[in-house]
Amino acid sequence: MQILIVWDDLTPEWLDRIAAETGAQLLVSRNKQEAAAMIEHADVGLGFVPPSLLQEATAMQWLQTAYAGVEGVLAVPWGNPDMVLTNGSGIFGPNIAEQIVGMMITFTRGLHKARDAQKQHQWEWPYTFGELYGSHVGLLGYGDIGRETAKRLKAFGCQLTAIRRSPGKPDDWVDAVYPYTDLDDILPNLDFLVCSLPHTQFTEGLLPLRRLQMLPNHAVIVNVGRGSLLPEADLIKALETQEIGGAALDVTAVEPLPPSSRLWDLDNVILTPHNSGNTPYHVERGLDIFFANWRRFRRGEPLLNVVVPEVGY
Amino acid sequence: MQILIVWDDLTPEWLDRIAAETGAQLLVSRNKQEAAAMIEHADVGLGFVPPSLLQEATAMQWLQTAYAGVEGVLAVPWGNPDMVLTNGSGIFGPNIAEQIVGMMITFTRGLHKARDAQKQHQWEWPYTFGELYGSHVGLLGYGDIGRETAKRLKAFGCQLTAIRRSPGKPDDWVDAVYPYTDLDDILPNLDFLVCSLPHTQFTEGLLPLRRLQMLPNHAVIVNVGRGSLLPEADLIKALETQEIGGAALDVTAVEPLPPSSRLWDLDNVILTPHNSGNTPYHVERGLDIFFANWRRFRRGEPLLNVVVPEVGY
Repeated sequence: MQILIVWDDLTPEWLDRIAAETGAQLLVSRNKQEAAAMIEHADVGLGFVPPSLLQEATAMQWLQTAYAGVEGVLAVPWGNPDMVLTNGSGIFGPNIAEQIVGMMITFTRGLHKARDAQKQHQWEWPYTFGELYGSHVGLLGYGDIGRETAKRLKAFGCQLTAIRRSPGKPDDWVDAVYPYTDLDDILPNLDFLVCSLPHTQFTEGLLPLRRLQMLPNHAVIVNVGRGSLLPEADLIKALETQEIGGAALDVTAVEPLPPSSRLWDLDNVILTPHNSGNTPYHVERGLDIFFANWRRFRRGEPLLNVVVPEVGY
Repeated sequence: MQILIVWDDLTPEWLDRIAAETGAQLLVSRNKQEAAAMIEHADVGLGFVPPSLLQEATAMQWLQTAYAGVEGVLAVPWGNPDMVLTNGSGIFGPNIAEQIVGMMITFTRGLHKARDAQKQHQWEWPYTFGELYGSHVGLLGYGDIGRETAKRLKAFGCQLTAIRRSPGKPDDWVDAVYPYTDLDDILPNLDFLVCSLPHTQFTEGLLPLRRLQMLPNHAVIVNVGRGSLLPEADLIKALETQEIGGAALDVTAVEPLPPSSRLWDLDNVILTPHNSGNTPYHVERGLDIFFANWRRFRRGEPLLNVVVPEVGY
């Protein structure tokens, strides 16, 4: 059994542990050239295997990615059409949820404007204050990130509504779960809309201007999923006309966001450069998933985090 | 029965409600001159009665403030030495806790540096990432603000230790409660130290350089209580030598912070201008306390939020 590993952050100690726990031969690749030379021999792939090489992965039975959004893997031909693809869902929930809540509080407490005032040595606050407490938050997408966000927001006294593809029931954190088809009925009631959707045919352009206009004028949109959800011209228009209250964006339609984009300077926008996924626990949590799946793989059991290509995640 | 009210935010509707619920005559004052002319007739004071007038408040049996830090009231003579003073503890817990958590996440996720980068149209992050998850947070002062903060941080997966004057037991949120005398033993184990202490003889200068040096080099101090807790030269020294990781300050020794202070420009400092107490629910929550206390006052029962002058809060 041979495992192709493309994951720069794995130290020799982690590689030793993978070798010990799997008993497999590790094909450790530090760049695309090395990976290209080894991929045809690999039974399993782990980490950041370049999608463009997958056509050569004729022996690969299973690919475990170290990230969540697999649209790049789904967009290319695979050398083994029966390969099982599993993603890194579960790695990023705590840190992305934390960044989401931090961006929401930035708006309620004016922390972005406080930062601007600090730079000017100004002890004043030309802005008003709100609270997460008592606000109604819609979670568009309710997977790992949505759940971790709901857990935290519940402690702030928010009312929480999940909006998701698959049917579901309220849990310990969300008060209600609705299907996407009810989205238009829910938008007018929200103070925040937190989006953690992957890029799929279905989610692309899901929030055009007409839906943004359904939100209350004070509502803030948070997007940590994929920028393709929000047509950028529509988003900018809704922000400029103050038909929505603001946007906290970790993702944009084009990344890096071009320096000329109007989003940079809008008064009601805060931007982070697609870094909410960064966490010091990336390797630890990613390998937890890999090891759990390795045991299932060896026993012939269904794997965790299996991506359904037709659905897109 | 006459109630002197000094509270600009009270609308006519709120004043009508106070009149209806109390049946008392309201002496509504919009400025210090008006208050000075009426204070000698007042049986009860409510809101922001200027401390310098209290010497004339010979008939005042009870003063309910609309704020928490009453060092100004305790520093002046009272016309009625037996006046009961009750403060606004409970009004500000949700919003101050929210601002505390927001400032902590600003550090874990680099949101202040993301804001600076946004201003420069830069899509990059020359900083590293942490998580509140798994971090050990000390709550120095564990009253209303401390508890509301603990509730929220618990949901982020923090380990929580309260450090307080009065003895106490762990509750649903904090894992341990220690007296101030154990402070030096606890400091070396903390990732964050959240301070919500009032200004008293005891808390003034409680965290000099030698105590700051006991914290780990990466630890971040959050102060929303009173600036007098942290001798400013000591704080600046600890920050400049990176003996602590950072500081999030809503209060400073001198307010407004002078434009020449080095705190403004330190890379590991974020500042808010003593505004964490601002909330759209100020009047609503403040009057909830007033009405609860009014009923107790009329029945001759002990009031809530009674300030003990010797203790200072």
